Amino acid sequence: MKKELMLVAAGLVLAVNGVSQVHAQAKPEDLVKQRKAGMTMIGKYFGPIGAMVQGKMPYDANVVARNAGYLDVLSKLPWDGFHASTDGAQDTRAKPEIYRQTDKFNQARDAMQTEMAKLVAAAKSGDQDAVKSTFGATGKACKACHDDYRKEK
Amino acid sequence: MKKELMLVAAGLVLAVNGVSQVHAQAKPEDLVKQRKAGMTMIGKYFGPIGAMVQGKMPYDANVVARNAGYLDVLSKLPWDGFHASTDGAQDTRAKPEIYRQTDKFNQARDAMQTEMAKLVAAAKSGDQDAVKSTFGATGKACKACHDDYRKEK
Repeated sequence: MKKELMLVAAGLVLAVNGVSQVHAQAKPEDLVKQRKAGMTMIGKYFGPIGAMVQGKMPYDANVVARNAGYLDVLSKLPWDGFHASTDGAQDTRAKPEIYRQTDKFNQARDAMQTEMAKLVAAAKSGDQDAVKSTFGATGKACKACHDDYRKEK
Repeated sequence: MKKELMLVAAGLVLAVNGVSQVHAQAKPEDLVKQRKAGMTMIGKYFGPIGAMVQGKMPYDANVVARNAGYLDVLSKLPWDGFHASTDGAQDTRAKPEIYRQTDKFNQARDAMQTEMAKLVAAAKSGDQDAVKSTFGATGKACKACHDDYRKEK
């Protein structure tokens, strides 16, 4: 338990402080596991909003607002996992271009977060049309980054 | 992509609304994947607080407060994944007792969330001693549930 905690600790602090001696302790496989977990959690709460705006599930404004609140946090979490030390890591669909085009990759991340913030605001306002349009824009931002930086299954 | 979204959508809504026809669509393996991802994310942000209060990493009140803010959300997320449909699921360390002692399991969940809320408050207040004591109590609540309901590796 303690060892596990230290490993995740190292994985976190590298992104916050950029402390190089802490970088060295972070295991690439832990960073990969954590960033994948973050993406899974985004999917868990983003997906139902999509199903609702597409009419595949009854629209529930409370669920949309709650999910958006979670996504406001979750959309910030996977990114420190794409550390240079994970270049070449196993068990990931991340393309190596992520580590060659850092600025472009970070722009794609920022674009997603910008659109997500609009979706969060729309969800909190209760404006279903705004949720629909901002969901679409956010989904496009997700897809654009996946198209460029995620291998097909 | 759309199929994936629907699956996670189904997995979510069951916990929010208890809509039985939506339950039927949720794949147990998706629920397991999501709840494990939630636990991984809790570990990612809880672990560094432990390392800091134990003096294994320099104490950074900003990181503690930030992590606590994330944990305030993350501590709410894994639980709907322990749906009855996941009783007997593969690729999980969850013990079958979870599904036989639902009330006791939910009490353990609530105990963790209660302690976590105190940690979040302490972290936001900036009181390092309070962070230390509430971290310890939260860790014990995590461990108590793991001891009872998680198989050893």
